[in-house]
Amino acid sequence: MACRFQSALRLAVGKPYPALKPAYQRVVGHGQRCFSVSTAWQLRTKEMNEEVLASLKVNQKRLMEDIHYTCQWGTGERWGSAPTETGMSRLALSDADKEARDWFVSTTQALGCKTTVDSMGNIFAVRPGLRNDKPPTFVGSHLDTQPTGGRYDGILGVTAGVEMLKVLADNWVETEYPVGVVNWTNEEGARFPLSMVASGVWAGSIPQETAHNTREVHPGTATMLSELTRIGYLGQTPASYESIPMAAHFELHIEQGPLLEMSNKKIGVVKGVQAYKWFTVTVKGRDTHTGTTDLKSRADALLTAAKMILHSHRLATANAALASTGILNLKPGSTNTVPGDVTFSLDIRAPTDSTVQKMKDLILADFAAIAAGKDILDSNANCTSGLPCSVTIVEDFDSPATIFHNDCIDSVSKAARSVLGPDAQNLVMEMTSGAGHDSVYASKRCPTSMIFVPCREGVSHNPAEFCKEEDCSLGAQVLLQSVLRFDRMRDERRISWKQEPYTL
Amino acid sequence: MACRFQSALRLAVGKPYPALKPAYQRVVGHGQRCFSVSTAWQLRTKEMNEEVLASLKVNQKRLMEDIHYTCQWGTGERWGSAPTETGMSRLALSDADKEARDWFVSTTQALGCKTTVDSMGNIFAVRPGLRNDKPPTFVGSHLDTQPTGGRYDGILGVTAGVEMLKVLADNWVETEYPVGVVNWTNEEGARFPLSMVASGVWAGSIPQETAHNTREVHPGTATMLSELTRIGYLGQTPASYESIPMAAHFELHIEQGPLLEMSNKKIGVVKGVQAYKWFTVTVKGRDTHTGTTDLKSRADALLTAAKMILHSHRLATANAALASTGILNLKPGSTNTVPGDVTFSLDIRAPTDSTVQKMKDLILADFAAIAAGKDILDSNANCTSGLPCSVTIVEDFDSPATIFHNDCIDSVSKAARSVLGPDAQNLVMEMTSGAGHDSVYASKRCPTSMIFVPCREGVSHNPAEFCKEEDCSLGAQVLLQSVLRFDRMRDERRISWKQEPYTL
Repeated sequence: MACRFQSALRLAVGKPYPALKPAYQRVVGHGQRCFSVSTAWQLRTKEMNEEVLASLKVNQKRLMEDIHYTCQWGTGERWGSAPTETGMSRLALSDADKEARDWFVSTTQALGCKTTVDSMGNIFAVRPGLRNDKPPTFVGSHLDTQPTGGRYDGILGVTAGVEMLKVLADNWVETEYPVGVVNWTNEEGARFPLSMVASGVWAGSIPQETAHNTREVHPGTATMLSELTRIGYLGQTPASYESIPMAAHFELHIEQGPLLEMSNKKIGVVKGVQAYKWFTVTVKGRDTHTGTTDLKSRADALLTAAKMILHSHRLATANAALASTGILNLKPGSTNTVPGDVTFSLDIRAPTDSTVQKMKDLILADFAAIAAGKDILDSNANCTSGLPCSVTIVEDFDSPATIFHNDCIDSVSKAARSVLGPDAQNLVMEMTSGAGHDSVYASKRCPTSMIFVPCREGVSHNPAEFCKEEDCSLGAQVLLQSVLRFDRMRDERRISWKQEPYTL
Repeated sequence: MACRFQSALRLAVGKPYPALKPAYQRVVGHGQRCFSVSTAWQLRTKEMNEEVLASLKVNQKRLMEDIHYTCQWGTGERWGSAPTETGMSRLALSDADKEARDWFVSTTQALGCKTTVDSMGNIFAVRPGLRNDKPPTFVGSHLDTQPTGGRYDGILGVTAGVEMLKVLADNWVETEYPVGVVNWTNEEGARFPLSMVASGVWAGSIPQETAHNTREVHPGTATMLSELTRIGYLGQTPASYESIPMAAHFELHIEQGPLLEMSNKKIGVVKGVQAYKWFTVTVKGRDTHTGTTDLKSRADALLTAAKMILHSHRLATANAALASTGILNLKPGSTNTVPGDVTFSLDIRAPTDSTVQKMKDLILADFAAIAAGKDILDSNANCTSGLPCSVTIVEDFDSPATIFHNDCIDSVSKAARSVLGPDAQNLVMEMTSGAGHDSVYASKRCPTSMIFVPCREGVSHNPAEFCKEEDCSLGAQVLLQSVLRFDRMRDERRISWKQEPYTL
């Protein structure tokens, strides 16, 4: 197996792979392996002790070069003067996303991976291990961004996966099981308003037809299916955990919140993800002239929507939840016409499913009352009573609270302690993710955990999103070790249990 | 003069004009005039008594046919099952607007008018009178509509002007002074967000360069100048009251409010227009992730805008004014990103300039305070204090309260009483317009008044905007008589005063 893999690697790369660094030859001290065309040393994960694990280092400079190189596709707003001080605007399945995907495919293939594109455009790059009859241990994240996003959200996770492949190749590491990197499609839900939709289809949680028919947000008309076809990323392999099983899924991500930075921590060991629901709220009133319609003769859909948005914030405050509106469209859209039609998104989050459900119940009742003109929490104080509006609320998306798998959490935790050394107890914290990630869906079908690194002021979904180079690198280092530790654990359990624990 | 005009009319129409109705021959009882090619009878306005004035009737069926015929260009949303039960969407200087303009030019030319297009695309159609060295008495309104507008706002005024020309031609009426019909460009301010912009340039109140450079609303990029050029309506004549003076301006319009209908009146004699100002409000916060940013770490531009919109309504309630937001755009526009950038329109109206100014002062102070996170009228009650936003408020447009001219008001009032007969006192009301109209700018350079007719439930700027056929016709009848009465008065004053009172 190993020999065949290395041969394949040479063929893929097209030239002999660089010789091992002398340091690893010294550290490892293994015997020569059965390479048909090489006499290089090789590391097997099952034989790695703590010292060896700690010695495998990601190349920070190379990682940052990959991040910024891929950010040439879909470069966004500038926030600083340095060449890399811009945000990103790489909407899923856009031309820019296709360029980034092409890079991912060619780069991972050059590193000896077999790449598979599934029917949701997810790209799985798999590096063979010793036992390729079992599912790979995956690293995954996404290359799409928000319309005014940054250079780290998603991109760090994928490029750290590529960096992992490079470190494994550099050091002639042979894993017990295959390892892979996956780029999930449309994680952001920014262009096609179903976030994590493609990992959701893979997990069997979202029907593929629903996903394929999802239209891009106003004012576009393309669907996921039409855009997958257009950019050439509609794969033949069904998007399913049955077609492409995973032994585990690890994801490195910026925290996107302020907690790590505020508490001077470096690594977050993510134990789960808070619950959330997304709604589309449509308020219907009546278009009327702003100058000739007195306040009491109006059915003002925007004034009503404003009361609802404010009320959702008040409910969130009262229930220790989050409520956010990120999209609002109105019709007809003229300075001197009272809008008769307003549609807005509502994103509700809380640590527990029960709190999210309570928020939903309150919103359904209170929004209907506000539309009808009733006073809710003084919403009508000092107002003129107008004509009633109607409201419809559609739940678009439901992501229950997620609890990650102890085996993965344990791998991340040990890796973080190894990477950070003696000071680890001051630099690592366990946390719950505020944001959804593809790991939420992955966790439904395989053991999963995530690694968080701090980002400046907790700012994300913003061009100025920023993660220090040393933090990107630390995170990638923990990711690499987590995968190797998990691979080693799989082998140990196989030996002790006489079976592969994670056969799906 | 009369002979030359009639000859010109015959040439323009291209065939002998229909013979007079016998009724008018009987009623008028004048001697034969000096027609070189005809022996027909002719009416001169100076010789018209009340009986003759009352006998000149608009053709209701023909008027309605003109209204609905022109609504083939830019047909909007359907609200009923009948062929004419749709709204309109004829944005200024669009292809549909060009078609309507072409109809206006060809129709008025066929009725013997000389048409002039000025540098704002205003179209003036002038029917000669006996004394063509003096400015015409104009009827004016607009053919552009809101994006989801109706079939009457503006269109009724222009088609009633055309119907006036037809009645004058039918009855061989010769006015003492020329009379005209003007189609003003972009009255709505819906596509190019400066309402009544072209009458404003004509009046010298808006610089032509400002108007020409006005860009269409988001997301378009065309300017008024580029679209005037594109559709071939950039005239050579300067848009100015000096190039095209008016002796008076009368405008027939649907009320666009509920007062006439609610009080069972048929004609509103409009004595003036309320004051208003338009603002663009921009709130800047910070784009952040909805799931990972706790409420106190947010600078939520949309939540802040919602508080402002609600507050503007409360201020309007407290000050007997109107406050309306008809446009709102936000960025970046993603369900899971707190918007960092919101821009909205604010339309403030009140009967007096001082109330509008007071509202402006309150808004400037209070919006700044709301953006800074201060509590204004309990705006922060039950809320979480977040990070501050910034706000900028630009005044785009100022229309002081307008008082129309007593001579025009008197003409309209007498016409209404004549048309409505013995029951007039129950069917006519004096009113102030809530909406701006081109008559506001016209009134800065010539005596002006308006005629209002009821519209169903006061609904306007809405596809279902509706005015009964009998009311359209009544309004057109009052318009016709107002113009003839004004023309007669000009002649009477000339005789008694030895001068033309309205030379500009």
